[in-house]
Amino acid sequence: MQYELISVDDHIIEPPRVWVDRLPSKYHDQCPHVVEEEGREFWYYEGNRVDTMGLNAVAGRPQEEWDMDPVRYSDMIQGCWDPVARAEDMRLDGVVGTVCFPTLPRFAGTLFLGFQDKEMADLCVKAYNDWLIDEWCAAAPDLYIPMIITQLWDPQKGADEIRRMAARGARCITFPETPDPLGLPSYFTDHWDPVWQALEETGLACNMHIGTSGTMQSPAKDAPFHVTIMLAQASAAIGMVGMLEAPVLRKFPNLQMVFSEGGLGWIPAQLERCDRMWERHRMWSGLDDLKPSELFKRNMYGAFVDDSVGLKLRDHIGVDRILWESDFPHVETMWPHSQDVMKRLTADLTDHEIDLVTNANARKLYNWPKKDEKAGAA
Amino acid sequence: MQYELISVDDHIIEPPRVWVDRLPSKYHDQCPHVVEEEGREFWYYEGNRVDTMGLNAVAGRPQEEWDMDPVRYSDMIQGCWDPVARAEDMRLDGVVGTVCFPTLPRFAGTLFLGFQDKEMADLCVKAYNDWLIDEWCAAAPDLYIPMIITQLWDPQKGADEIRRMAARGARCITFPETPDPLGLPSYFTDHWDPVWQALEETGLACNMHIGTSGTMQSPAKDAPFHVTIMLAQASAAIGMVGMLEAPVLRKFPNLQMVFSEGGLGWIPAQLERCDRMWERHRMWSGLDDLKPSELFKRNMYGAFVDDSVGLKLRDHIGVDRILWESDFPHVETMWPHSQDVMKRLTADLTDHEIDLVTNANARKLYNWPKKDEKAGAA
Repeated sequence: MQYELISVDDHIIEPPRVWVDRLPSKYHDQCPHVVEEEGREFWYYEGNRVDTMGLNAVAGRPQEEWDMDPVRYSDMIQGCWDPVARAEDMRLDGVVGTVCFPTLPRFAGTLFLGFQDKEMADLCVKAYNDWLIDEWCAAAPDLYIPMIITQLWDPQKGADEIRRMAARGARCITFPETPDPLGLPSYFTDHWDPVWQALEETGLACNMHIGTSGTMQSPAKDAPFHVTIMLAQASAAIGMVGMLEAPVLRKFPNLQMVFSEGGLGWIPAQLERCDRMWERHRMWSGLDDLKPSELFKRNMYGAFVDDSVGLKLRDHIGVDRILWESDFPHVETMWPHSQDVMKRLTADLTDHEIDLVTNANARKLYNWPKKDEKAGAA
Repeated sequence: MQYELISVDDHIIEPPRVWVDRLPSKYHDQCPHVVEEEGREFWYYEGNRVDTMGLNAVAGRPQEEWDMDPVRYSDMIQGCWDPVARAEDMRLDGVVGTVCFPTLPRFAGTLFLGFQDKEMADLCVKAYNDWLIDEWCAAAPDLYIPMIITQLWDPQKGADEIRRMAARGARCITFPETPDPLGLPSYFTDHWDPVWQALEETGLACNMHIGTSGTMQSPAKDAPFHVTIMLAQASAAIGMVGMLEAPVLRKFPNLQMVFSEGGLGWIPAQLERCDRMWERHRMWSGLDDLKPSELFKRNMYGAFVDDSVGLKLRDHIGVDRILWESDFPHVETMWPHSQDVMKRLTADLTDHEIDLVTNANARKLYNWPKKDEKAGAA
C-alpha cells in the first residue's frame, strides 16, 4: 500500500442486538430492536417502525443496483455491520484508522433526543457507547478510533458521559453542526458550556457531520432528492460560519471541530467572504478582533473524499487542517479504490503534505499515535 | 483609468415620484409614494409604511457611521438616487457600464407580487420599467444597461412585458434565484415557460441576485445578522444547483443566467461536487447525460466584487463565465477604489483575461458593444 490512510468519517450499520443485549429486560419492547415482518427486517423503538435504507449500505454492490429500497442484513456485505469483516475491508483499502458514525441512533444520537422515556434514552446512549468500545472497537483496537454519542437533552449528562467514555478510550464525539433545527438552544447561548468544558478537559474532538441537525438545503419542495445531496456542503458552511461567530471558541479556545463530509474546496471562498464581511461590518456590529480565517486555522478541520479543488487550495485552508474520509459504506465511498483516488488527488503534493492529509493530521487531532510511537512512549 | 469596468450589479435608490408621476391619480394614495412624518421620510403603499434602510446607501459615508438606521434622501450621496450624479460617480471609478437592481420594488419586483390590487401592481411594474428607460437610463444611455422587472404572479404577462421592454432597449431581467419560498411554482414545473420562451426569443439575460426569494441561510434564530451576510453565497448555490438540475435549461438551451452577488470562489467546488454526485446517483435517479459543470459553462455566469480565490480558479469556472460587480452603493462596494482592487485581483491574469472579466464578457452577455463598434455597425 502506497498510502497509510486514516478515515475520519465511516458509518456503522448497527447489528440487531446492540440495545437488547445491554438494557434491562423491561425495556426490550421499547428500546431499539429488529423485528422480522412481511418478509423484511424493521427496527422498532417506542412504538415506531422504521425501514433500513438502501443507500446507507451500497459498498461492494454494483452501481446499477443502488436505490433507496430497504435492504436486509444479508443483502449487505458483512463489513457493514460486522467489525471483524469491516477491519478486513478497511485493510484491503489501506485504511489503518477509522472514525465511525452511528446509523440507527443517527449522527450525534439525535434519535434518543426524541424518545419519550428519557430514562431509557439515557440507557440507550450509554449502551451504544459501551457496545462501541466493548464489541466494535475491541474487534480491532488499533484500527477503530472510538467516537461516542451524548445525551443531547441534558448537557450536564452529556459532559458526564464524555468524561466516563474518555476514561474508556473514546477520542471524539459526534455532535450537531447546529442544534437550533432540533429544537435545542443554539451555540449562541451558554447552554452547551458543560459539553465544551468536558471536551476541552478530556482533549476529545468534536465531529459535526453534515445533516446532523436534520436540515438539508433545497431550492424547492418538488426538487428531486439528488439536488439536496449536491447541496449538502451548505450544511457544513452554515455550521462552520455559525461556530466561527458564536461565543464558543472564544470561551473554549482549545476545542477542535471537524466538519465531516463537508468537503474542502468551498472553504477558502467562504473564509475569504467571512473575513471581508468581518472587515466591512465589524464596526456597526461590534465584532471582536478574531478574524474568521484565523479562528478556522486554530480550531477547525475540513475533510475530503474526492476533492481536487480543495487540495489545490490547501495553502488557503492550511495543509495541517485537512483530513481524509472514506465514507464507507455510503454512496460517496471510493472503496476499494481509495489508493488510486489518493494517487490522483495528491499528484502535486509533497511527501510531507501527503503524510499530513492522509494520516498525520488525524493522528494529532484524535491523539492516535502510530503503534511503534505508542510502544516507544510506554 | 487602467481598467474599463462593466458592473453587473449596482442598486438604484428610487426617487419619491417614480410611481405617482406615472399612475392615474386614483392610485396615488395606494401606489408607492413618500410621506414626511415625525421628521422622517417613509414609503407608503397599500396602507403599509416602511423605513428606508441605512445599509442600502453607505457609499461615500465613513464606515464609522454605517448602521441600519433609516436615512433621508438628503443623508445619502446624490448618486444613490440621481442618475446624472450616479453617472459622475461611476466615471470617477472607471465604470463604463452598469446594471442596476431596484430597491423599493425589491429584487425582481417581488414587492408587487404581494399587492392586493393586481391591476395596480401591473401598472407599478410597467411604471418602474418605463421610468427606468425614460429617466434613469436616458440620463446616460451609454452607461446604463437596462434591467427590468416583470409581473411575477402571471408568467404570460411577464413574457409580454419582456417583449414590450426588449423593444424599448431592455437587455436583461431580474428574477428570483428560486420562486418556491415566495409561494410560487418552482422551476421544476413548466409554469415559467412563457418567461423563458420570451427571454430566449429576445436574447435578454436573466439576473438572479442572492436573496431575491426572500430566504437567507442562518445557523440559528438568535444568530447575529452579520452571520447571515457571511452565508449569503449559499443562496446563489441553492439557486444555481436547482437550475442545473431543473428542466429549464434542457427546454431552453440558449438562456443565460447570472448569479448576482453570489461570488466566484465556491463555484468550482460546487460543480465538482455536482459532477461527482451526478456520476454516483445518475443510475438510480434516472439523470440525463448533461454533466452539471458543462451546463454551467453553457448557460451560467458567476460574479465577483473582491474574490481572489475565484480568480485563481478561473480555469475551473471558465474565464468567459466571470463578470465583475461594484455593488454600489451597498456595504460591499469598493467604490471609489475599484481600479486599485482590480489591479490587486488581476495581477496574475493575462491582458486578454483581464479584458474578459472586466468588460468583454458583460458586453457579449448583455449585447452591449463598445461605442465605436456600435458606430461601425451602424
